[in-house]
Amino acid sequence: MEPFEVHILGCGSALPTTRHNASSQVVKIGNKLFMIDCGEGTQLQLRRGHVHFSFINHIFITHLHGDHCFGLIGLISTFGLLGRTAPLHIYAAPMLEKIMRPQLDFYCKDIKYPLFFHGIDAGKQEIIFEDNTVTVETIPLSHRMPCCGFLFKEKPKKRHLLGDAANYYNIPAYMRTAIKEGADFTTAEGKTIPNKLLTREPDPSRSYAYCSDTKPCPAICKQIEGTDLLYHEATFAESEKERARQTFHSTARDAAEIARRANVKRLIIGHYSSRYEDESVLLSEAREVFPNSCCTDEGIVFHV
Amino acid sequence: MEPFEVHILGCGSALPTTRHNASSQVVKIGNKLFMIDCGEGTQLQLRRGHVHFSFINHIFITHLHGDHCFGLIGLISTFGLLGRTAPLHIYAAPMLEKIMRPQLDFYCKDIKYPLFFHGIDAGKQEIIFEDNTVTVETIPLSHRMPCCGFLFKEKPKKRHLLGDAANYYNIPAYMRTAIKEGADFTTAEGKTIPNKLLTREPDPSRSYAYCSDTKPCPAICKQIEGTDLLYHEATFAESEKERARQTFHSTARDAAEIARRANVKRLIIGHYSSRYEDESVLLSEAREVFPNSCCTDEGIVFHV
Repeated sequence: MEPFEVHILGCGSALPTTRHNASSQVVKIGNKLFMIDCGEGTQLQLRRGHVHFSFINHIFITHLHGDHCFGLIGLISTFGLLGRTAPLHIYAAPMLEKIMRPQLDFYCKDIKYPLFFHGIDAGKQEIIFEDNTVTVETIPLSHRMPCCGFLFKEKPKKRHLLGDAANYYNIPAYMRTAIKEGADFTTAEGKTIPNKLLTREPDPSRSYAYCSDTKPCPAICKQIEGTDLLYHEATFAESEKERARQTFHSTARDAAEIARRANVKRLIIGHYSSRYEDESVLLSEAREVFPNSCCTDEGIVFHV
Repeated sequence: MEPFEVHILGCGSALPTTRHNASSQVVKIGNKLFMIDCGEGTQLQLRRGHVHFSFINHIFITHLHGDHCFGLIGLISTFGLLGRTAPLHIYAAPMLEKIMRPQLDFYCKDIKYPLFFHGIDAGKQEIIFEDNTVTVETIPLSHRMPCCGFLFKEKPKKRHLLGDAANYYNIPAYMRTAIKEGADFTTAEGKTIPNKLLTREPDPSRSYAYCSDTKPCPAICKQIEGTDLLYHEATFAESEKERARQTFHSTARDAAEIARRANVKRLIIGHYSSRYEDESVLLSEAREVFPNSCCTDEGIVFHV
């Protein structure tokens, strides 16, 4: 199967620590790289992680808190210095472009690539990106400012042509795509061979949901039902539940409850408050509710 | 003597590498911390270097290229999150505030501390900061945009009162400051004791010059004559001299020539181009001209 990977560049929260960078991830699907969030220092993390900068064409920003977007201007500038020519698309609250406009006018007037801002409505569940293999949907969340997560879904894939059958019936190359898409085959003698004798099931279409920052939102469970991998913020432990509620964040247990209710296959948590010297308390609280939970950390690559 | 230290937070240039961060330094004089430049990731470097964030009250920005100022908004925001109340002063080209204004309006409307921007004229040599012990002067440089270095000078210090003499003449406490400032002492019997019998020479007034980014500017030698420590950019080796000239940068040899002509005591070089896997070629080229040269690196503290 083609790769479907999540590279963790930063999984800390608002206050910087020596342990965690501000939020950013790169989702690799096939040979396409999608960035989610771009906190300060993200371009350095890309270097450290040996991620191919230039393959990133789409950046999705959940919300405008600084720890999710202060790295954008540096990354955009660096793309310019590196001589990028491919268009770059940024999906974010429309306010982002307004906030960045004087910087863009000052720093990016000579860049050689087109830069597009796509305003998104964080309150609406909708497909904001689509190509031949992938869709990206917004997941409305509830934070102190408009905020949405993103659901990456592979589109349904073609069936696998059975090599033995293809040889036996001598299926010509020009017919193969249609058969992979479900067509039957008619032999030179006029006999119809049903598709199910020629093909086997396609690879599953995988999905990844990124939900940060948010208080627990059970309303998202329907949308992310059965997702292969869920990243859910877990800023606090249960001992700080009150603080989590006040600041519209989640506890690790909250994240796990969402994972359980949404019946996802695996949960990864992050956006750790700087108060935790290590995240074992968060992980154990999550695992009590949803055993297949895991902590994110800078440099880890999760395979979906 | 009071500490006078230069903490290197970042000594890379425009393109990020895994070896060096974007430009930033903290100059510690006594218990005062001054920041010079604030490239992306500076607040993380402060954490890594265990520098006391909250003691930084003055930030000096040489010029507006992103690798010298993209870390400002993150640092300003973090000061807000940490509950800072002390005023913060930023000295930079007036354009900086204009570029940052929408960000400041969006992110800093709730900060509890006063934030002051002081516009500086990079083309003029002048004192832009002064308190009871230190002055900071601009050093006009020549780069692709207006740019100045900064010269930190301790003011002349008080003479040392000789303990034996103070006891012998029974000098009262209230007289001591005047004597340290050069006054003679008159005994109860009316005898005048000349100051030179009561005191010894004051500690030397130390100085530090920061010159980046710039093509070689011999005109600065007079201003920085005899400086204890000079940081001079050395973006390129001699093999890239042509490129250095085109981009208004210096080679390591250029930096050393300035150090030699200005008769400084010690040279430290930095702002390395990302093309150098290590900086030994730069260091050896500098040392050919000015033996007391040293490479900067993140985490190093130089004592002036």
